[in-house]
Amino acid sequence: MFRNDLIRHGLLVETGVCGVYGRAAEFEDTVERVDRLVSATGAADGADVMRFPPILNRAHFERSGFLKSFPHLAGAVHAFSGQEHSHRQLLRAVEEGRDWSEWLPATEVVLTPAACYPVYPTLAGLLPGKGRLVDVMSYCFRHEPSEDPARMQMFRMHEHVRAADASTIAAWLEVWLARAMSVTEALGLDARSEVASDPFFGRGGKLLADAQRDQGLKREIVAPIASDECPTAIISLNSHQDHFGEAFGIRTVDGAVAHTACVGFGLERIALALYARHHFDRGRWPSPVREALGL
Amino acid sequence: MFRNDLIRHGLLVETGVCGVYGRAAEFEDTVERVDRLVSATGAADGADVMRFPPILNRAHFERSGFLKSFPHLAGAVHAFSGQEHSHRQLLRAVEEGRDWSEWLPATEVVLTPAACYPVYPTLAGLLPGKGRLVDVMSYCFRHEPSEDPARMQMFRMHEHVRAADASTIAAWLEVWLARAMSVTEALGLDARSEVASDPFFGRGGKLLADAQRDQGLKREIVAPIASDECPTAIISLNSHQDHFGEAFGIRTVDGAVAHTACVGFGLERIALALYARHHFDRGRWPSPVREALGL
Repeated sequence: MFRNDLIRHGLLVETGVCGVYGRAAEFEDTVERVDRLVSATGAADGADVMRFPPILNRAHFERSGFLKSFPHLAGAVHAFSGQEHSHRQLLRAVEEGRDWSEWLPATEVVLTPAACYPVYPTLAGLLPGKGRLVDVMSYCFRHEPSEDPARMQMFRMHEHVRAADASTIAAWLEVWLARAMSVTEALGLDARSEVASDPFFGRGGKLLADAQRDQGLKREIVAPIASDECPTAIISLNSHQDHFGEAFGIRTVDGAVAHTACVGFGLERIALALYARHHFDRGRWPSPVREALGL
Repeated sequence: MFRNDLIRHGLLVETGVCGVYGRAAEFEDTVERVDRLVSATGAADGADVMRFPPILNRAHFERSGFLKSFPHLAGAVHAFSGQEHSHRQLLRAVEEGRDWSEWLPATEVVLTPAACYPVYPTLAGLLPGKGRLVDVMSYCFRHEPSEDPARMQMFRMHEHVRAADASTIAAWLEVWLARAMSVTEALGLDARSEVASDPFFGRGGKLLADAQRDQGLKREIVAPIASDECPTAIISLNSHQDHFGEAFGIRTVDGAVAHTACVGFGLERIALALYARHHFDRGRWPSPVREALGL
């Protein structure tokens, strides 16, 4: 099993929670090299670099619509705010192995579900003539405990985010589709691009997913990780149309609601795909792959 | 005001939540350079490098005793786990601006309060003869919303963690005290070392803090950030005695409960101290400082 092999080879460290791993030195180094390759791929565009901690303003999260579509994946931050009496009750619950969450009300923040979410609120207002382009990378949280090492509860995503008019966005996504494929080629991955949909919640979710596919709003680059038959998305390209523009009041220079799109590279997933494809001895990966990673 | 200056100079980005900031390109670059300097300072020791996402197994967190001493700083992760009916209730609450936390029970994870917390459970059992040494770095969460830019709710801490017998630990802390001072000298900071205590919760907290001081278990290197009169801790050295050894069953080669200690570098705080000391034009920082940072 690929998950156990990763642990046995000292690449991932178990934490006792499904889908939460420590990264040992070499695996972290591989992730950082993939991250630098993604940075280099987009460097000529001169994006504004922003780095956010992996938490998000709760009010912005509510406005984003994430809870409508993906409530099952969201994570919120709760914290103790009582005095000594409730502290004693809290400690008693911990000691007796009971649930202690009642003493931790919600805070002003939630965990970041995708690296681009903190960016949209910063774009509110009138965009410059050419729109905006932001390079962002952070740990993201998805509450989907799984034995599949490619489905981690926290993982890093490096994204480029574009806000502009619809036709600029469409052209920009075409450029990144080609770039994304060239990254996977440089890494020697057996990757292909396909029309995809998001994992919308509930019975109505299938309709939303079908509509997303029909409109071609999401493409994924997939590559084998835990299985050859069911390859995993390692890069995704997403057109949000005017969703975030509406939600956060982002307008193009002529006053119209801006369109947005993002391309996201799953850093751990790309690293995992490298180990799955080229095996565990990084010193023996093909020379062009080692070169692309600066090894 | 230093906080506003940092935003005006385009180093930090506001998020609308007190103590939560985006990092713009230059500030992030400064943090990364400080991180590399910390890595280089400890490199000769050959520590095991581990990197954890900023979440921690809830069971390990309970065992750590953090909730006894610092309940007011802890952050727990809650997530939705209902079906369509509760989803509709959740969305109605969001729409009506009501608290929606009742639909999000506790998950198996909490936010990491200090970079070293995920390390101790991995050390359980018998240590090798020379003990263990781990290099760890991650975002950490502390629920203390503040206008002071040096008191962020999420920030990065780079730590070296040592587990061994008591006298090995004491000698190791002396080595790192000297190293920590040499780092602040290389960075041209107006820093000094002092005996310190942790912000223990409640009325009993003062007694615990006094005991910690009397035993000299915590030292801090402080430097001016937002105020010259009240300098801020940028590095701390902590002796835990047998606290984590007991909690996680870490034993030295002769079977005794291991002692542990850690030295933690607050990466954002060191970066902030650099801007406070040498001002906002990084190109004009003193040559020895620029050299130490590889600028």
